[in-house]
Amino acid sequence: MVQPIGSIQSRIKNRKDAPTFYSENAPNAFLQLKPKYRDGLDQVEVGDDIIIITWLHRARRDVLRVHPRGDASRPLTGVFLTRSPDRPNPLGLHRAKVLEIRGNGLSVGPIEAIDGTPVVDIKPVVDHAHDF
Amino acid sequence: MVQPIGSIQSRIKNRKDAPTFYSENAPNAFLQLKPKYRDGLDQVEVGDDIIIITWLHRARRDVLRVHPRGDASRPLTGVFLTRSPDRPNPLGLHRAKVLEIRGNGLSVGPIEAIDGTPVVDIKPVVDHAHDF
Repeated sequence: MVQPIGSIQSRIKNRKDAPTFYSENAPNAFLQLKPKYRDGLDQVEVGDDIIIITWLHRARRDVLRVHPRGDASRPLTGVFLTRSPDRPNPLGLHRAKVLEIRGNGLSVGPIEAIDGTPVVDIKPVVDHAHDF
Repeated sequence: MVQPIGSIQSRIKNRKDAPTFYSENAPNAFLQLKPKYRDGLDQVEVGDDIIIITWLHRARRDVLRVHPRGDASRPLTGVFLTRSPDRPNPLGLHRAKVLEIRGNGLSVGPIEAIDGTPVVDIKPVVDHAHDF
């Protein structure tokens, strides 16, 4: 039922090259929106803080417990208590800043998603102190 | 491709009774997880701050611009710059606290989702100061 609204263009080409935890040392990337969704960005501005929700298409969906951050010395933990991409619905949550508005897309960063990752939603950060 | 992992049980029965903006004055609710996903909550604790991602099943998916908070005096704005439930992929993002662990579910709050809303993912809040 989810329809990609666009995708990420990044220099991270493989999952093994992605940061192991959230946006640590992540690069900037380009969020290419499909033209028919362009009106959904009406009034976006450079400097806006946004939440990008992706579909982590390379993830495993049959995993329910993992070692956090891939560290085998840490106890197995339910995936819903981790940011592992492996989970029943592999949604990725990425907070990033809008760096440039170009054509039907946005230059954003930092973001750890790999090249070709489908984007399924974008939301504003609504409360910097409390919210996500 | 999204499979609900559970659903919200709330005293909010209709969209018109839901808060117009995020969790303002929202009640607590029960997140009923499907039994087969229970291991995904392994090590959850009362007091944890979590992000619940829902599928806002009553939303319209053909809307790209709205008046923020339903206020017609505010200019039409791209849905990706608002928290409107009406959007191409009606994913809801809810930050809540775990209040109780009971059976295959969690008492959580505050949360503005209406009764019966499918839950598609749960994530930890990873950085209280910076993250979502």
